[in-house]
Amino acid sequence: MPYPESMINLIQEFARMPGVGQRTAERFAFYILGAPRETVELLSSLVLKVKESVQYCQECFNLSDEPVCRICSDSSRDHALLCVVQDPKDMIAVEKAGDFRGSYHVLLGALSPLEGIGPKDLKIKELLDRLKKGRIKEVVIATSSDTEGDATALYLLKQLKPFKIKVTRIAHGVPVGSALEFVDKATLARAFKQRQEI
Amino acid sequence: MPYPESMINLIQEFARMPGVGQRTAERFAFYILGAPRETVELLSSLVLKVKESVQYCQECFNLSDEPVCRICSDSSRDHALLCVVQDPKDMIAVEKAGDFRGSYHVLLGALSPLEGIGPKDLKIKELLDRLKKGRIKEVVIATSSDTEGDATALYLLKQLKPFKIKVTRIAHGVPVGSALEFVDKATLARAFKQRQEI
Repeated sequence: MPYPESMINLIQEFARMPGVGQRTAERFAFYILGAPRETVELLSSLVLKVKESVQYCQECFNLSDEPVCRICSDSSRDHALLCVVQDPKDMIAVEKAGDFRGSYHVLLGALSPLEGIGPKDLKIKELLDRLKKGRIKEVVIATSSDTEGDATALYLLKQLKPFKIKVTRIAHGVPVGSALEFVDKATLARAFKQRQEI
Repeated sequence: MPYPESMINLIQEFARMPGVGQRTAERFAFYILGAPRETVELLSSLVLKVKESVQYCQECFNLSDEPVCRICSDSSRDHALLCVVQDPKDMIAVEKAGDFRGSYHVLLGALSPLEGIGPKDLKIKELLDRLKKGRIKEVVIATSSDTEGDATALYLLKQLKPFKIKVTRIAHGVPVGSALEFVDKATLARAFKQRQEI
């Protein structure tokens, strides 16, 4: 390659990022080359900082800069209502929707016997420990609606029974705004099964 | 946004890169979060290194890690044959094609009265200085085939006349492998005008 060596190396590293091919990586390298020095220094330090400072919240296992995340330490939120999700990304999706004002528990995965992921690999014990404190009145299970998510929801339901609290699962059905003709069979079947009286 | 602050900042910086929107920037931030520490440290240092070490070659104004670039200091190349391009990216495109074994001169732009770019803003004086040394026997003008590129080629042609060396321009015509029906009018017109006897 006719690039200077340091650019070749940078292009190679950029090309490791998800969805970035050789040409995009080259564009990124030229962007770095042409960007103001402060921008480049900021990017360089932020990349390190994220790796160093982002940790899991001790309470809910959400991503956080502090030992306890902003949601867990936000007294304006309803800490009696707990939403259980698989992944920090799922929690972020719920937050972006903006309706949910309770707190979260991130399992950091879903049960998957095929991949050897059992209950001990998830933050289930930690969830039960939180419930034992007696402050939580409702658990909303928001695991994915695939095999692993369904299995995890079922397992959780069993584990939560002894606590005699309200356990719900988010509704699955036709996405808002989508035409019925484009909705897949499984979703439609679920939408009919879980139809609600109006 | 429900991300930790350091992630929000990183996402913002990633989103400045060309063609990167909010969602892609988020994916990149999660990639950084999940990547091994060494990978992240390497990326962080390479970004700075490119900004610090990449400079313009003193001879040809190509990008280089050293004061004189690898092509200019490569004795196996034909330094009597000089290809003039607008931009380091153009030079890289020619190198990737792999056929050209001469050396280069990068103008770092093209004449553009509308944008206030005149001959003094380009490395034209430096090109003439190189020609004055008398080693160069042929100059191949490979500026773009748009208004600015054409104007630059014409201006160079006038400046190079006194040197009494061979001046050529790369051929413009139908791209190799493309069906004639999809070629634009201007390209077809040029292809007919510059037709060659076979």
